[in-house]
Parts: sequence; structure tokens; C-alpha cells
Amino acid sequence: MYPMKQLLTYLFIIAAIPALAQTKLVDKDAKFVLVIHGGAGSVNRKNMTPDKEKAYTDGLQRALTVGYNILVRGGSAVDAVQACIMVLEDDSLFNAGKGAVMTHEGHCELDASIMDGKSLKAGAVAGVTTVRNPICAARAVMEKSRHVMMAGKGAEMFAAENNCSIVDNSYFHTERSRRALEGAIRDDSIREIKQKKSVNDPENRDNKYGTVGAVALDASGNLAAATSTGGMTNKRFGRIGDSPIIGAGTYADNNSCAISCTGWGEYFIRLGMAKAVADRIELKGMKLDDAAKEMILTKLPALGGDGGLIGVDKEGNITMPFNTSGMYRAYIKSTGEKEILMYRD
Amino acid sequence: MYPMKQLLTYLFIIAAIPALAQTKLVDKDAKFVLVIHGGAGSVNRKNMTPDKEKAYTDGLQRALTVGYNILVRGGSAVDAVQACIMVLEDDSLFNAGKGAVMTHEGHCELDASIMDGKSLKAGAVAGVTTVRNPICAARAVMEKSRHVMMAGKGAEMFAAENNCSIVDNSYFHTERSRRALEGAIRDDSIREIKQKKSVNDPENRDNKYGTVGAVALDASGNLAAATSTGGMTNKRFGRIGDSPIIGAGTYADNNSCAISCTGWGEYFIRLGMAKAVADRIELKGMKLDDAAKEMILTKLPALGGDGGLIGVDKEGNITMPFNTSGMYRAYIKSTGEKEILMYRD
Repeated sequence: MYPMKQLLTYLFIIAAIPALAQTKLVDKDAKFVLVIHGGAGSVNRKNMTPDKEKAYTDGLQRALTVGYNILVRGGSAVDAVQACIMVLEDDSLFNAGKGAVMTHEGHCELDASIMDGKSLKAGAVAGVTTVRNPICAARAVMEKSRHVMMAGKGAEMFAAENNCSIVDNSYFHTERSRRALEGAIRDDSIREIKQKKSVNDPENRDNKYGTVGAVALDASGNLAAATSTGGMTNKRFGRIGDSPIIGAGTYADNNSCAISCTGWGEYFIRLGMAKAVADRIELKGMKLDDAAKEMILTKLPALGGDGGLIGVDKEGNITMPFNTSGMYRAYIKSTGEKEILMYRD
Repeated sequence: MYPMKQLLTYLFIIAAIPALAQTKLVDKDAKFVLVIHGGAGSVNRKNMTPDKEKAYTDGLQRALTVGYNILVRGGSAVDAVQACIMVLEDDSLFNAGKGAVMTHEGHCELDASIMDGKSLKAGAVAGVTTVRNPICAARAVMEKSRHVMMAGKGAEMFAAENNCSIVDNSYFHTERSRRALEGAIRDDSIREIKQKKSVNDPENRDNKYGTVGAVALDASGNLAAATSTGGMTNKRFGRIGDSPIIGAGTYADNNSCAISCTGWGEYFIRLGMAKAVADRIELKGMKLDDAAKEMILTKLPALGGDGGLIGVDKEGNITMPFNTSGMYRAYIKSTGEKEILMYRD
């Protein structure tokens, strides 16, 4: 069943992305870069099994391959980041699309956003419960509406009108997310959640802060960023995190960089994380890696927050800082250089 | 009836704001500043009657008075901006709270946000339909939840649990907003809305981009910002504009400034407007007025957007730029200096 599901996903993506139908490759000197993440959190060697490690590695590799195949054919950064996110959304290992964590009520409520660094056009959806690939809805908002952000039933209606695949909420459910919710509710009943509780807290759950993201520089020199998430296990009150917030979880501007964040969303919103990194490059002339590290390793922990981000700038430099024990992350460049990583060391 | 409603509003606010119960005034050398806006748009002398002008002036004056009375007693910037917004929300002249514009379906869906520049704490609600003062819900999210942003029914449930006044959606409705919706639907049926349609377009409606906002510097040197809106007339699909987006419509940081925006929200989100102004001060050393004017008079129109913002920095400097024909705006300083303005000239 699993290979069949993957095959169907690929066919679905190939049909959706015109660049994949092309066979001509970009000039061998063309520079493009793709960076992806599958969430930051307590990713430790001691919690990992060889099987689990292989599953995550394979999941990230599948997304890289799909994105690379678009970029190497001269496809746009926007197409590449969307395609990567779709692969990760369809993979139940990650907290986005299928496999998303559950709200207090046992449903999945999904958020996603995408931004095109060339035009500064952006699209986002929050709290959608029936769109198989929330990133497709975000892309539709960006390209087929006058709006940037839509929420709830309205966003679902718009997604359906714009040919996004619609599913029953049960499609997203997994045994893992159900157990995580049960655990979180049990924990809540034992003790009050502390405001300053860290994702490093061993009691805290791996998938509580999961998100997936992708940023790319394409052969035409354009940047794009995209992020998708199921949010926090046991979330209530229609909570919206940073993932669908342009400037917080996602930002892309050809003048600076493309950024996708993962972590404790509230802190990322308060810091305007993605925009703060971009502004450090545009306004202060900082290098991407220095700007990202200042925000993630200094400003974020100073406020009490945890997480990480991925970024690429117009020169193709990349950054992947995090202040948690690990972050699922990977990149591939036009040179063929590639890494798939998850731990700090 | 009108004076009685105002009296009740004042009593409600006095009860809610502890600082107003104090009688001791701040030291006469203490510096504080309050700036408010009631939306940017086609505010022209030729569309104005003396009665209408007086009504807007009186509405802004009432908000200034309430905010000033908090600040002069040593109340916090956060208390002052919330109280100002509540007065403007309760005033049916402005597109926030009572008098909010209607969605395509003839309902009111309200958004608000607030941010404390001292702690970078922030709260926002989007798409609430039953909270009399959405800014109170935003304040509750900021202070009584682990979250920054809540939407829809969940946000309403949280607001109710935290003693925000709950009303039937019909409370917000006015004859004016109903007529505006009918006009907008009629216009839509005649022609497709152009993507690049300007608020300067004479066909466009005054209240389509209305918002209210307040920023303050208090006597302790802390900054705060708040914004509240009914959104766009005839909006659909659960559209969320910039007003509840921290970093877009609202931002406050004691290291730079407090900003509240009004205008075509999509452009403000794409530019990360409020954060972009703050970053120009923090990262580039620009003056508040220069930073705000670069964003509103250069970057915003370059992208095709319209609107304005108000800001105050830690030295008490203010800015109120807009690229529309007018913006309802006013300020008052601890020196007693005060202006209430609406036109460009």
C-alpha cells in the first residue's frame, strides 16, 4: 500500500506542476537551491530507532527529489516549494496534512502559507479541516483571489471552488496523533501547563511543534517560501500559530531571502521572525546565516521560545539554525551537493 | 439616547481600567503621547458635511479624552490604547465594533489585535461575530492564554470565558453598513473587481478600508499599539486582513516604536508593514517619520496599495502618513498639544 500511495502522490504532483512535464534541463551553470524542514523539536539519537531514522530520511529525500526535479527543469521556486510541501503533507510522519496533530476536540485543523519573492504575492489559509493539501489552498489564495489570508469554512469553500482536493477530516487522522492527544489531555489534567515550558522539556512531545517548510532559489534567481502545519496537539479556541502568518512563519523577498519557520509559533509571531531575518539582510546588510542565527539563537531564547528556521538568499547561501535538540532538515543544490540531517551534532 | 450610550460606554471603560480609578496625576514633567486613527480612505472636503465633520471630530475627541485620562494618571500604554479602541468600536461612525461593514452574507466579522512593546506580548482575534469589543478579546488572548491569535467560534468561546461582553451579531449592524453592502454587491454584478483597484477610485467606498487604531507612549516609557476593524464590505471566504496580524497591522517594541495601520490589508500583510517600520528604526537607525513615510509613500504605492498608519517612538515622536485622500487621525501629548485631522491639507 505504501509504495502505491507514494506513486499516486507523485502522479498527482506531476499533473499539478507544469514544469515537470518538460524534459529540457536548465543550463549546467544555472544555480538553484532547495532547503526543506520537517519540524524542530526534541529530535534525539536516544529517542530514535534505525527504522524511524530511515523513515524520516526517506520522507525528506522524497520531497527533495520532487523539488529538485522541478528546479532542474527550470521550474519556478514557487512550484518547487509547493511540490515539496505536498509530499511532506501527504507523508503521515510529519505534522502537516495527513498525520497532523489533533485539536482538543480530536479534529485536525490545518494552516499553510506560501510567498513568491519576485512579486511579494502571498497566500495563506488557517483552520482548514477538509483540504487534503492546505498548501494548494494557500497557492490558490495567492493566485486566484484578491486576498492574502482566508480562514475556516470560507477558506475551505474557496479551496473547493479552485480545484483543491477535498477530503473528510478523518483522512488526516493517525493512531500516533490520537495517542499524542490522549497523552496531552492526560498531562493537562495532572498539572497546569506552564507558560514557559520548553520544547526541551522531556515531558513535552516531539510532535507538538512540528511543521514542514520549504524555501528555494530557482534558476531564474527568484525566491519562494512555504510552510504547512497541523499546529499544536490539544490546541483550543481556534488557535492560529505562525505558519499561516506572512512575516512570522513564512516570508520571501528577492531583495533579501526566503524563510520558513518551525517551533513555538507564539514566539515567532511576536518576533515577526521571518520578516526580522529578511530585514536584517535588507536593512542592515547582514549575511543570511548571521541574521538567522541572531534571531534563532539569541532573540528567540531571550524571549523564552524554541524552534528553528530554514532560509536561502539570492546568492544561494543557505541557513538552518535551531535552538532545540534537533530539526528535520535537508538541502540540495544545483551542484548536486546534498545533506539530510536531523540531530544537532 | 446617544449621550446615554456614551455615558454607559464611559462607565464600562472606567470599570475596566484600574488606572482611571486613581486620582493622582503623573509628574508634570512626565512625557506621554497618544495617537489614534479612524481609518484611511477617500476623506474629501467635497464629500463632507459640517454635521459629518463634527461627528467624526467628536468621536475622535472622545477616544482621545479617555486615553489621555488614563495616561495622565500614570496608566499603561496598553490600557490607554485598549480604552481608545473601545470608544471607537462603540461608535457606529467607524468600521470596527458597532458600525462594522458587512460580509457578503450580511454579517459582521471582526478582527482586532494589541501588542505591548515592553514585553513583546501580543494578542489577536480574527473573524469574531459576537464579541462587542473585539479589542477586549485580543487583550484577553494576550494576557490570559498561551496563544497570540485565535479565530472564529473558538475565539468567541475564549472571549466569553474571559468576561468579554457578548452580543448578538445584529448589535453591530447599521443602516449605513447595509447600504454599503448592497452597493458593493450591485457593483460586483456589473463588473469584475479589478485586482489593482485603488481606494482613490471614486467608485470605491469610503468605509471599505476603515479601521481604528491607537498607539501610545506612557509616562513609564512603554509603548503599545492596538487595531480593530470590521474588514472590507462584501468580504468573502473568511478573509483576514492585516488588522489582526502582528507585524502587519499592529506592532509595538520599546526598542523602536508602536504602529497601527489602516488601508488595503493585503498589501500591508505582504509588506509586513508595521514590523517593516519598526525594523527601519531598530536596524537602520532611521527616524520614525522617515521610516513610516518610506513604507507608506514609496513601498506601498509601488506595490499598488493604499492606506496609512500612525506611530509613536520611545522619544515621543509621532507619525501619521497616508497615501489616500484622507485619514481620520488625532493625537494628544502630555504637554496638552493636540490635533484632530482628517484631510490631506
